[in-house]
Amino acid sequence: MPKLEAYSRDLPYSYALGIFPAMECLSARPQACQRLLVHSEAGDSEGVRKLIAAAQAHGVRIEQADRMLGRLSGKENCYAAMVFAKQQDALDAHKPHLVLHHPSDGGNAGTMLRTCLALGVRDVAIIRPAVDIYDPRVVRASMGALLHLNIAHYDDFAAYRAVYAAHAVYPLMLDGAKPLDEVARQVRTPYALVLGNEATGLPPEFAQAGQTVRIPQSERVDSLNVAVAAAIGLYAFRQAEGAFDGARVKEDI
Amino acid sequence: MPKLEAYSRDLPYSYALGIFPAMECLSARPQACQRLLVHSEAGDSEGVRKLIAAAQAHGVRIEQADRMLGRLSGKENCYAAMVFAKQQDALDAHKPHLVLHHPSDGGNAGTMLRTCLALGVRDVAIIRPAVDIYDPRVVRASMGALLHLNIAHYDDFAAYRAVYAAHAVYPLMLDGAKPLDEVARQVRTPYALVLGNEATGLPPEFAQAGQTVRIPQSERVDSLNVAVAAAIGLYAFRQAEGAFDGARVKEDI
Repeated sequence: MPKLEAYSRDLPYSYALGIFPAMECLSARPQACQRLLVHSEAGDSEGVRKLIAAAQAHGVRIEQADRMLGRLSGKENCYAAMVFAKQQDALDAHKPHLVLHHPSDGGNAGTMLRTCLALGVRDVAIIRPAVDIYDPRVVRASMGALLHLNIAHYDDFAAYRAVYAAHAVYPLMLDGAKPLDEVARQVRTPYALVLGNEATGLPPEFAQAGQTVRIPQSERVDSLNVAVAAAIGLYAFRQAEGAFDGARVKEDI
Repeated sequence: MPKLEAYSRDLPYSYALGIFPAMECLSARPQACQRLLVHSEAGDSEGVRKLIAAAQAHGVRIEQADRMLGRLSGKENCYAAMVFAKQQDALDAHKPHLVLHHPSDGGNAGTMLRTCLALGVRDVAIIRPAVDIYDPRVVRASMGALLHLNIAHYDDFAAYRAVYAAHAVYPLMLDGAKPLDEVARQVRTPYALVLGNEATGLPPEFAQAGQTVRIPQSERVDSLNVAVAAAIGLYAFRQAEGAFDGARVKEDI
């Protein structure tokens, strides 16, 4: 077994830090779990005991790794971490997609992944250059949601589009042609809701990529936060397409 | 004039750091602006020149304050800051309110204030204990939105309610009784949408405070981020009450 390295973007694996994220990793994608790292002082933690039992049941190797856990978690105590393989997932061609074009902030990216999972949108395309969503801090910011989603990276939007040509494309733009509510009422499925970079939004050529959408907003603000805009857009689309049954997501029922 | 101090919660004033926020402060609440701080190396900046001219037009004292600007902004360069008086605003009794119960994260609070302004909700009640929204980092996270809003603090929800008894109260809760879409379609105005603390949500007694609301969401996630939940809730209510005209907020027109 190769020696583990402190996280960097180029590694083929990442770390789900903490007992809850490590357990999430094991339940969501057991085949990606490579090793469970445990701190020598974690012996009394019930959570760690359960995690070790679950790892054993899945045949995942368990290692004591105090130094690496300290290095990964910085100042916070961290009793356990799961080493998991990064992978390029295939997206579901029949389901809605969230497309993130050049996302640059890890916190926003994590929040958007968490929102996707909450609203039952399980397929996310990321157009490079982009923040490293496998950075352990982003995995944590997503509250582990990332592990439950299908996530695929592309070098440009055309490369994504070449694979999923049937999706109706809805770029969310400050100068979008139609208001969100109107577009949502007529939404075609499957759809791809496209969000731009935090600072620069989507480039103007996206006006030709599909039906552009604008969230009604006051001229007194520059723009909405991108994670907020994504959440409003996804909620309106999901509501309109009948994805909810009362206060639940239909897929869960 | 008293010597300025590094920011702390107990000061009667705060700082809007940066050229854009300082200008926002001057245009949104000129009567609260006490002094404009300018860095000695800012001479060539057109933004600073405009800011100085605007401050002079409003009779706001201008000071060179390199050390204080350095202290306030940390590692980032900051050429200007506005010193502004904190104040307890009165909320508009006829308009919708966002009520934040024990918000504890400054970033989320700033994002929620920015969302409020974007969606045309100008009145925000904050129930203590709460994060200090006048902390310069929160002012910055709100992109200056805070300066355009009426914000009032209360020691508990009953104290808020005693002043604004006519508002229909809608606590947003994970176990809310009705789904958001259904509640929004029947929303009574003026309303108060109530959001809880990031970690703990609203305490159970809010189930008796009004019509509880749940955003449809998967059981696979613990909860939505509070700023995301607030945004979805506000958007749905504003859309349903007819606050938008196409992609604009009616108040702006």
